[in-house]
Amino acid sequence: MSTSIESKRREKIGAIATASMANRAMPLIRNAWYVAAQGSELGRTPIARQLLERSVVLFRRENGEAVALQNRCCHRSFPLSEGRLEGDTLVCRYHGFRYNCEGRVIEVPSQSHPPGEIGVHCYPVREKSPFVWFWAGDPGKADEACLPHQEWLESADWDRYAGYLHINASYVHMHENLLDLSHLSFLHEKTFGTPEYARAPIEMTVEPPNFEVWRHVECELPAIYSKPLGWTGQKAIRSSGAQFVGPGLHVNTGVFRNLEIPESGQEPKPMVKVAQLITPESRDATHYWYCLSRNFARHDEGVTEFMKNAQYAAFSEDVYALEHIRGMQDLGEPPGFLEINVAADRPGVEMRRYLKQLSDAEQAG
Amino acid sequence: MSTSIESKRREKIGAIATASMANRAMPLIRNAWYVAAQGSELGRTPIARQLLERSVVLFRRENGEAVALQNRCCHRSFPLSEGRLEGDTLVCRYHGFRYNCEGRVIEVPSQSHPPGEIGVHCYPVREKSPFVWFWAGDPGKADEACLPHQEWLESADWDRYAGYLHINASYVHMHENLLDLSHLSFLHEKTFGTPEYARAPIEMTVEPPNFEVWRHVECELPAIYSKPLGWTGQKAIRSSGAQFVGPGLHVNTGVFRNLEIPESGQEPKPMVKVAQLITPESRDATHYWYCLSRNFARHDEGVTEFMKNAQYAAFSEDVYALEHIRGMQDLGEPPGFLEINVAADRPGVEMRRYLKQLSDAEQAG
Amino acid sequence: MSTSIESKRREKIGAIATASMANRAMPLIRNAWYVAAQGSELGRTPIARQLLERSVVLFRRENGEAVALQNRCCHRSFPLSEGRLEGDTLVCRYHGFRYNCEGRVIEVPSQSHPPGEIGVHCYPVREKSPFVWFWAGDPGKADEACLPHQEWLESADWDRYAGYLHINASYVHMHENLLDLSHLSFLHEKTFGTPEYARAPIEMTVEPPNFEVWRHVECELPAIYSKPLGWTGQKAIRSSGAQFVGPGLHVNTGVFRNLEIPESGQEPKPMVKVAQLITPESRDATHYWYCLSRNFARHDEGVTEFMKNAQYAAFSEDVYALEHIRGMQDLGEPPGFLEINVAADRPGVEMRRYLKQLSDAEQAG
Repeated sequence: MSTSIESKRREKIGAIATASMANRAMPLIRNAWYVAAQGSELGRTPIARQLLERSVVLFRRENGEAVALQNRCCHRSFPLSEGRLEGDTLVCRYHGFRYNCEGRVIEVPSQSHPPGEIGVHCYPVREKSPFVWFWAGDPGKADEACLPHQEWLESADWDRYAGYLHINASYVHMHENLLDLSHLSFLHEKTFGTPEYARAPIEMTVEPPNFEVWRHVECELPAIYSKPLGWTGQKAIRSSGAQFVGPGLHVNTGVFRNLEIPESGQEPKPMVKVAQLITPESRDATHYWYCLSRNFARHDEGVTEFMKNAQYAAFSEDVYALEHIRGMQDLGEPPGFLEINVAADRPGVEMRRYLKQLSDAEQAG
Repeated sequence: MSTSIESKRREKIGAIATASMANRAMPLIRNAWYVAAQGSELGRTPIARQLLERSVVLFRRENGEAVALQNRCCHRSFPLSEGRLEGDTLVCRYHGFRYNCEGRVIEVPSQSHPPGEIGVHCYPVREKSPFVWFWAGDPGKADEACLPHQEWLESADWDRYAGYLHINASYVHMHENLLDLSHLSFLHEKTFGTPEYARAPIEMTVEPPNFEVWRHVECELPAIYSKPLGWTGQKAIRSSGAQFVGPGLHVNTGVFRNLEIPESGQEPKPMVKVAQLITPESRDATHYWYCLSRNFARHDEGVTEFMKNAQYAAFSEDVYALEHIRGMQDLGEPPGFLEINVAADRPGVEMRRYLKQLSDAEQAG
Repeated sequence: MSTSIESKRREKIGAIATASMANRAMPLIRNAWYVAAQGSELGRTPIARQLLERSVVLFRRENGEAVALQNRCCHRSFPLSEGRLEGDTLVCRYHGFRYNCEGRVIEVPSQSHPPGEIGVHCYPVREKSPFVWFWAGDPGKADEACLPHQEWLESADWDRYAGYLHINASYVHMHENLLDLSHLSFLHEKTFGTPEYARAPIEMTVEPPNFEVWRHVECELPAIYSKPLGWTGQKAIRSSGAQFVGPGLHVNTGVFRNLEIPESGQEPKPMVKVAQLITPESRDATHYWYCLSRNFARHDEGVTEFMKNAQYAAFSEDVYALEHIRGMQDLGEPPGFLEINVAADRPGVEMRRYLKQLSDAEQAG
C-alpha cells in the first residue's frame, strides 16, 4: 500500500497508534487494590506469588488475618516463602532472619540484635470473602474506601462459585476484552454467544472513570443459562452489561426475561453477576480470578457444577484469544502498523486511555 | 596471541570481518520470491506460517487458487488462521471481521459497513507445482519474470520427490553451505561424500548475481546414487554443481558417467537436479524445502523411497552443522574474533557480499 | 517507607549497593586457574564444555596429556568437539581443517597448505589429580606457581571422593555462600547444621587476598560425621573453617574433638578437608565440583558411600538456595533496593569487593 493511500486510510478510519493507549508495554499501575488470592488459598504455610512484577509471600497470622510481604529477604534475597512460620513470625530459611507480620526484622541469629530498622515491604491487605485484596503501591495512599469489593460477593442472597485462569498476556487486553460484548457471537459462539449478539445495538457509558456497556438481545439463551433456568427452546430477552470498575476489577451482569411466560411472575428477574478479578503478574502475564453469583436455582449443587464447567470453557476461550494475540504481537509490528478501531470499540479505547493516564501520572509522581 | 602477531596474521590470511558480509544479524531481503508452502499443504482450512518474521495465513479459494494474507487481523491482532472460510471470505474468530481474498475487510458485524478501506497485506502468490511461491516485499515490485521456478520441477521427463526440514539457524549460512562443495568429504562422509571430494579442483563462477561451483571427481559413487544406478563397486565420474539462483532458491546438480562401460551408451547421462528452497522464518530460523528430480530409474517407487530416505539423512547433517554453528555464535565472539576464509570459500563469501548489498539497498530504499 | 526514613535506615545499617561488590553482572575474571574437568572425564573422545562464557574442547593426547582448545573452528565456527582425533590432531567434521594440540591449523584439505598461521586459542592446562585445571585468560600471564592445587588432594594419607553439581546462578554468590558459616543452622538444618551454629562466635581473617572464617561449636555432630566416627549421641567440639583461596577454589575444613573421651588419644584429630571448585560457566551459571578428604574411617567404602550421599544432599541445598535467590534477582530490583549486611557478612562482602577489583583491573588492562 503506498504512503498516500495509507495516510488517507488512517484519516478516514480514525486509526489510533497503540502507544497513545494503555498497552502491554505500559508500566503497571501500582496505586490500586488488586486481588492477591482467594481466601481459601491462604493458611499457615507461606506461599509465593508474583504480583505486579514482584514476588509476594502470603500467609495467615495465628488469628487468621491475611499477611502479604515482599518475598525477598532484605539480607541475601532468599525467598521468605521457603521459610517457616513460628507464631506470628516468619523465619528465613537461609540465615534465620526473623520477620514480624509488618515485615520488620526482629532477630538476626548471628548477632544480639538487628542492625537498625530493617525489613521488607508490607502490603496493605483487606480480606473480603471470597478474596484477599492488597494494595500494590505506596501504602500511604491505600484507601479502604476505594476497595472495589462488591457486596453481592458476600451476600447470602446469591449462590456463587469462583475460579481461576492464568493468562500469558497483558491485563490491559483482558480489560478491553471484558468491556467488549461484540466478540460473543464469534469467539464464544459455542459457549456464551448467540448469533444475534453481533449486531445488537450498544448502550455505552464513557465517562472516565466510568466505562459501561449494555446490550439487550432477543434470543434463545445459550445453554449455560437456559438449562439452569429450564428455558431451553424458549425466547427470552438477554440483557448483558459489562462494567470497568478499576484496574483490578471488572463486573459483568446478565439479566434474563422469558418472553413465553408473563413478565409479572418474573420479579426479581433471574440474574448473574460475575466479578472478574484482574491482577497483573507482569506486564505480559495476568492472574484472572472470577466469581459468578446467581439469584436462581438456589442451593442446587448440580446447577453450580454445570455452570462452573460451562463458564470455565467460555473463559478459556478468552485466554486462548489473548494468548494468540500476544503471539502476533511478539512478532513485532510491520512498519506503519496501526490497529483499526470501530464504533463498538469506543468504551475499550477510552478505558485504555484512562489506564494510560493513571500509569503516566504514577510515573511522573 | 599478542596484538601484533594477530594483526600480521590477519593481513596474511585475508580474514574478513563477518559484518561486511551477509550474516544472521542482517535485515532480511523482502523483495524476492520465496516458497511459502508445498502446494499439497494448502486447502480450505487456513494455516498459519511464520515467513520472513511475519505471520502469514495460507489457504485456497473455492477455485483452488492459493492465497497468502497477513495473519494479524487489522482490528485487534487476532490470527486470522483461527477463523473460518465462508466461500472466498475469511471470517475472524474474534469479532467476525470478514476479509476477501485481497485482504480487504468487507464486513464488520457491529456496524453497517466497514470504516473505510481497511484490511491486511495481501502477498502476491504464484503456484508452480510442487510449490507455492510468494513475494515477501513491496507488491508493486513483484515481477513474475523473476520467479525462480525451474521447468524441470514440473516436467514429466523426471521422477521427483520433495521434503522439508526446519533449521534453527540463519538462511545465510544455509546458502553458503549449499554453495560449498568442500564439506562433502567430512560432514557427509557417511552419506553424500567420498574422500576424493575434499581435494578435487573447483571450477568457480563468481559474477554477481551468478555464483556457481563445479567439481568433477573420479570415484566410486556413494550408495545414494550407485545403488539406484546399479553401479555399486564401479568407477565413475561424478560431476557436482552448486548454483545460487536467488535468496529463495539454490540448485544442485549431479551428473554421472560410468567409467567401466562405453561412454556412447550413456546419453543422456544420468542426472539429478535438486531444488533447495530456502525461506527465512526469522533471522535465526529457516524453512528448508527440497525437491530432487532424476532422469534414471524412472517410475521406480522403490528407488524413490530409497533416495528420499538417504537424502533426508544427508540433509539432516546440514541442519546439524548449521544448528551447531549457531550454538557457537550464540555464545558471542571473543574480542578480536575473525572468521578465516580459504580459497574454496570465495563463491560463498562473494555470494554473502551480494546478499548484503541487496539487504543494504532495501534498508536504504 | 518514606525517603527520609529510608535514608536514615541506610546510614544506620551500612547497607551497601550491590554494584560496589562483585555480583552476577560483573565481567568474569579470566586471569585465573579454574578446574575444567575431573581427570576421569577426559579421554580420546573430545568433549565440549562451556567455561567462562566460551566453548572449550577437552581431550587427551596419545601420551595422556590433557588439552583444552577453543571449540569454535576458526573457519566456519563449527564445534571442533564434533570432530575426531587422529593421533595428536583434531579434524573438524565440517571441512576437515586439521588442528594440532597447540590449536594451530596444519591442514586445509581444499588447498595445498593453510593460509598462514591460523588456529584457535590453546588454553594452558595443568592436571593435578583428581582435577584438570586451565588458565582462562592471557596465556602469557599463566603462572604455575599460582595453581591453587592442594597437596592433600593427591596425598595417600586421606580417603576421598569427588562430586559435581551444576548451579544456575552466579559463582560470586556461591563463593559468598561458602565463606558464610552462619547459614548452616537454617539452610542445612537437616544435613550439616546444628542449632548451636547460628549463634557461635566467628573468628575472621579479612586481609585481601586472604579471607577466612572459623567457628568452634560444642554440639552433637550431625550424622554425616558422627556416624562414621562412631560418636552418635556424644558431645564434641566441631571446628569449622571456610577459606577463600582464589576465584576457582574455596576450602572448607572440619576438625572434630570428642568431649567424652580423653583428648590425648585423639591425635591426629579427625578432620575433613573439602575442596570446592568453582568455575563460572557464564555469569549466571556455575560448574561446581567438590572433593572431600578425610583422615578417619580409612579405606572404608561403606563410610565413603554414606558420606558422599549425605554431602550431595547438603550441597544440593546450597544449589537450591542460590537458584532461588537468582529467581528473586531475575524479577529485578524495586526502586531503592539495598541488600542489608550484618557483622557476620564482613568476610563475604570484603571478598566480593576483592573480586570486583580483580575484574575491574582486567577490564581496564
